[in-house]
Amino acid sequence: MPPSTPLLPDQQAEIDTLRSSPQSTLRAVAPGMEKHLYTAHAVLDHGFVRVVDYMGDDAAICQAARVSYGKGTKSVSNDEGLIRYLMRHWHSTPFEMCELKLHVKLPVFVARQWIRHRTANVNEYSARYSILDREFYIPAPEHVNAQSEVNNQGRGEVLQGEEAARVLDLLKADSDRCYDNYQAMISSDGQSGLARELARMNLPANIYTQWYWKVDLHNLFHFLRLRADAHAQYEIRVYAEAICAIAADWVPFAYKAFADYRLGAVTMSSQMVDCMRRMLKGETVTQETSGMSAREWREFEEVTQS
Amino acid sequence: MPPSTPLLPDQQAEIDTLRSSPQSTLRAVAPGMEKHLYTAHAVLDHGFVRVVDYMGDDAAICQAARVSYGKGTKSVSNDEGLIRYLMRHWHSTPFEMCELKLHVKLPVFVARQWIRHRTANVNEYSARYSILDREFYIPAPEHVNAQSEVNNQGRGEVLQGEEAARVLDLLKADSDRCYDNYQAMISSDGQSGLARELARMNLPANIYTQWYWKVDLHNLFHFLRLRADAHAQYEIRVYAEAICAIAADWVPFAYKAFADYRLGAVTMSSQMVDCMRRMLKGETVTQETSGMSAREWREFEEVTQS
Amino acid sequence: MPPSTPLLPDQQAEIDTLRSSPQSTLRAVAPGMEKHLYTAHAVLDHGFVRVVDYMGDDAAICQAARVSYGKGTKSVSNDEGLIRYLMRHWHSTPFEMCELKLHVKLPVFVARQWIRHRTANVNEYSARYSILDREFYIPAPEHVNAQSEVNNQGRGEVLQGEEAARVLDLLKADSDRCYDNYQAMISSDGQSGLARELARMNLPANIYTQWYWKVDLHNLFHFLRLRADAHAQYEIRVYAEAICAIAADWVPFAYKAFADYRLGAVTMSSQMVDCMRRMLKGETVTQETSGMSAREWREFEEVTQS
Amino acid sequence: MPPSTPLLPDQQAEIDTLRSSPQSTLRAVAPGMEKHLYTAHAVLDHGFVRVVDYMGDDAAICQAARVSYGKGTKSVSNDEGLIRYLMRHWHSTPFEMCELKLHVKLPVFVARQWIRHRTANVNEYSARYSILDREFYIPAPEHVNAQSEVNNQGRGEVLQGEEAARVLDLLKADSDRCYDNYQAMISSDGQSGLARELARMNLPANIYTQWYWKVDLHNLFHFLRLRADAHAQYEIRVYAEAICAIAADWVPFAYKAFADYRLGAVTMSSQMVDCMRRMLKGETVTQETSGMSAREWREFEEVTQS
Repeated sequence: MPPSTPLLPDQQAEIDTLRSSPQSTLRAVAPGMEKHLYTAHAVLDHGFVRVVDYMGDDAAICQAARVSYGKGTKSVSNDEGLIRYLMRHWHSTPFEMCELKLHVKLPVFVARQWIRHRTANVNEYSARYSILDREFYIPAPEHVNAQSEVNNQGRGEVLQGEEAARVLDLLKADSDRCYDNYQAMISSDGQSGLARELARMNLPANIYTQWYWKVDLHNLFHFLRLRADAHAQYEIRVYAEAICAIAADWVPFAYKAFADYRLGAVTMSSQMVDCMRRMLKGETVTQETSGMSAREWREFEEVTQS
Repeated sequence: MPPSTPLLPDQQAEIDTLRSSPQSTLRAVAPGMEKHLYTAHAVLDHGFVRVVDYMGDDAAICQAARVSYGKGTKSVSNDEGLIRYLMRHWHSTPFEMCELKLHVKLPVFVARQWIRHRTANVNEYSARYSILDREFYIPAPEHVNAQSEVNNQGRGEVLQGEEAARVLDLLKADSDRCYDNYQAMISSDGQSGLARELARMNLPANIYTQWYWKVDLHNLFHFLRLRADAHAQYEIRVYAEAICAIAADWVPFAYKAFADYRLGAVTMSSQMVDCMRRMLKGETVTQETSGMSAREWREFEEVTQS
Repeated sequence: MPPSTPLLPDQQAEIDTLRSSPQSTLRAVAPGMEKHLYTAHAVLDHGFVRVVDYMGDDAAICQAARVSYGKGTKSVSNDEGLIRYLMRHWHSTPFEMCELKLHVKLPVFVARQWIRHRTANVNEYSARYSILDREFYIPAPEHVNAQSEVNNQGRGEVLQGEEAARVLDLLKADSDRCYDNYQAMISSDGQSGLARELARMNLPANIYTQWYWKVDLHNLFHFLRLRADAHAQYEIRVYAEAICAIAADWVPFAYKAFADYRLGAVTMSSQMVDCMRRMLKGETVTQETSGMSAREWREFEEVTQS
Repeated sequence: MPPSTPLLPDQQAEIDTLRSSPQSTLRAVAPGMEKHLYTAHAVLDHGFVRVVDYMGDDAAICQAARVSYGKGTKSVSNDEGLIRYLMRHWHSTPFEMCELKLHVKLPVFVARQWIRHRTANVNEYSARYSILDREFYIPAPEHVNAQSEVNNQGRGEVLQGEEAARVLDLLKADSDRCYDNYQAMISSDGQSGLARELARMNLPANIYTQWYWKVDLHNLFHFLRLRADAHAQYEIRVYAEAICAIAADWVPFAYKAFADYRLGAVTMSSQMVDCMRRMLKGETVTQETSGMSAREWREFEEVTQS
């Protein structure tokens, strides 16, 4: 199946029907978002992100900030300026006035990280009620990395040769065997068949699950700031990046402000601000004279140089 | 101004423009809701409720419960049955997949009760930044009641004659005087003019404020169950009732299930269930033999007789 | 290891030290709870629930409801009456004034259900950062059930004989093999060693994880109502029951009110209330004359008879 | 009444009793916090902040981050380093493991700002149920300011002479008259007496209310960052500052990290970071060559110079 359509033919047919039936509405419509509706954007080997619904647009953020009677926009440039001001000064409530609903297919170990963001609404496919499909995440060879030696919580170099091959073989074999046995246990062919709510415990964390996930724009940005970050695990970061691209089409002013004031921004501690000022006045500052720990100083150097 | 259009002419003009410009969308559209969009439903003497936006419909609840690829509906009757099942068994997450955004104008003392429901998004008109209008809630004579003698937290009989007249005179006079002095303090005519963030403290709690309020359907139902209840204060109950009428047009199946299983439902304690069963078997049960306190017994009689 | 102490000797030693060092405090102390502090109550084959900290007691609920200056208690019997009144009339905020912090060890598939309760604080052991232990949930033979034939989301009869034996063998063998391969992949012995954040994906959902979980009493009761219920999966219900026993010692009045008005209570729809009233007046009501669907009528019979 | 004891004698007596009865507990005790328990710290003319209860200390943050079995501390210096790391890298969940419960007395217009922070538990004194006291906030002369001319949402110079005197006279007179009429309306002396839930609408926003407010440390820090900020309104900032002093005694390491990485920190946009780097390399950057708007450039100059 080509990576851009990770759906089965009948699933695709249902979506095609929906996409061919535009309806009339009096609500705010975001033209850049309509093209994404229902389309499955492929992520990883079997996953996807699909926009199921959205509420609001850039203008809706301003409308709420102004508690307007009508659309409340004086001009488009005013809107962009207001949105940047709101973002810069941490006025978060107007961004909460936009809402996004996604259908996401993702490996269970990614879902477990994702769900830690509690300010969202979730309906997950139930393995108590239904039978999961035989779909497992097996990383591409270029994403099979060694444990990092400097960061307990990260990856190092890409594994090479036999070690890489062995990892991929083990992951595939264990996935397959566990799924075979899952099927064998629940089968009612010549036996009672184990309860699904029990059998699912045999499935490893690289199996795919799926859910509907609904979140407001403020909390979406918070999620993206943490998960589209270079320190996030690759397997969740690719989902965050796919959503970033969607959000940029949905609310272009808000997304640009987010990119400038959050994603690409840097928070400097009071010690860092002090050192920066001294350096701008021409003073030479070292870790010893900075008042920072070795670790903080290294982080400061990354900000000021690079 | 007639109660059905509590808007100024230019506000109405802005809204008329929006209502005359339908757009095309691929999202779910709730036909019963489109007619409410932007229309100000009058509440109390100067308040209103306006639908600014909505996400989802009855089908969207089922779609999320099934984690469907397409619309996911097999038949409309299946949808209603599923929705009633979800409501009856407290499966709340599918109802969270619908969202409502309202513009509400309401007295400050009502807003203070309303805001205690924390699971919603709010943007309120800022009296730090802007000047409030001279609009105060003065109850209609039939809603000026005495303190209840049986319920510390309720109203008794409607006040009559001179006492009622005096209450209305005092409310009007104090509102007017406080607003006159608010204006006098902030005026920059021949003086510096007091900061708005300070002057607002002179305004009584019957002044009107307004906000954008966004909430998901599950939390909306929770709000409506408490505030459309007979024990809620009249001045917030009328807002809840106006929203009930809107919700009934928006998600008719879900609203009917809510009316049957929440609004019109009764929760019986384990003692009450026990007594009911004994009575259905023909036993005569009295408070003495019920195991309930006098107060609980009175509540039980209300449920079983009425 | 006996089921009542599922801790390693050094873990037990740390806890013994804490338990032997009482300190003086001016805060509210719940005597019934002090005995539970730090003690690991065994749940399932390797899990536990430990109370790490708590805030408040029955009196604290009343103190908050009264917004008292001091302890605010006139008498203990007043406190119990107030607590029952608050519970009966869904005044939830005073119960939010008590807080519980637990350390829980539980299988991953149980953790995945548990985390859907979003109004709590969680710190989970990180398998990105650390290596998980070889501890898997293998059900006791009396808890290995067939899929229910009437309830898609439940269990039927206990499996017998060869089928049961085969299930247990498969669960054990797959757990062991997956863990062996997990170890083989992360080992740095003669190879680079796969990143932990990747290797964990090979572990099945019956592996144990652990977390700190902190929740207020209102949200704890909501969790317990759903998870100590007969319809909850056995493997999470035993955790809920262990916590029920702890809560009964911590806040005895509140727990009794919860048991009477929530756990043992029944919600009757408006149709059910109507039928009950007709039956109490002597009318014979059947499903046909009840206005209920077959399914609702069955649920009504369970309530009225049993 | 001296500002340090804004309590009535019987309230003080209740608190003195509590303070003289230490009890034994096995929970974590924060010595620096015990001295604050129940003591009313005066704020504004009649307000206060009182610590009613707390859960956890600096060590509890580390214990949760490590999901420890015991206290989990290897050494105090390790704890401080870990806390600073967690704060710097926005790992917020361990800070959620500490909890604070306050009793606060504050003017209604301050309460209305405060309550917008939704992630807290609140029980407010009910003016539906009870009668409010005659206590109004009247600003000290040095806090009666003109409207700012540069910031729509702020204050300018202190008002002088007759204008200031007139403001204070109006505030006092209106408070008194509104309260007199509130009393006249609810009085049952020779009349029925208006329901309290209605009469309260006559009271202006400078009347004092009080509530119990419970919040976890992460959300407390978020509140303090916004409300202890120079841009916050003076009347809420003094409450935030009183709470900062309490938090510094309660969790000294966490508070220090908060002060360095949040309160005293600066967030620089991607444009600002770029300009700073160019300047540190010796380039002269002006607004024209910066890529920033005039407003953003002004904010950048404040950060780099000051």
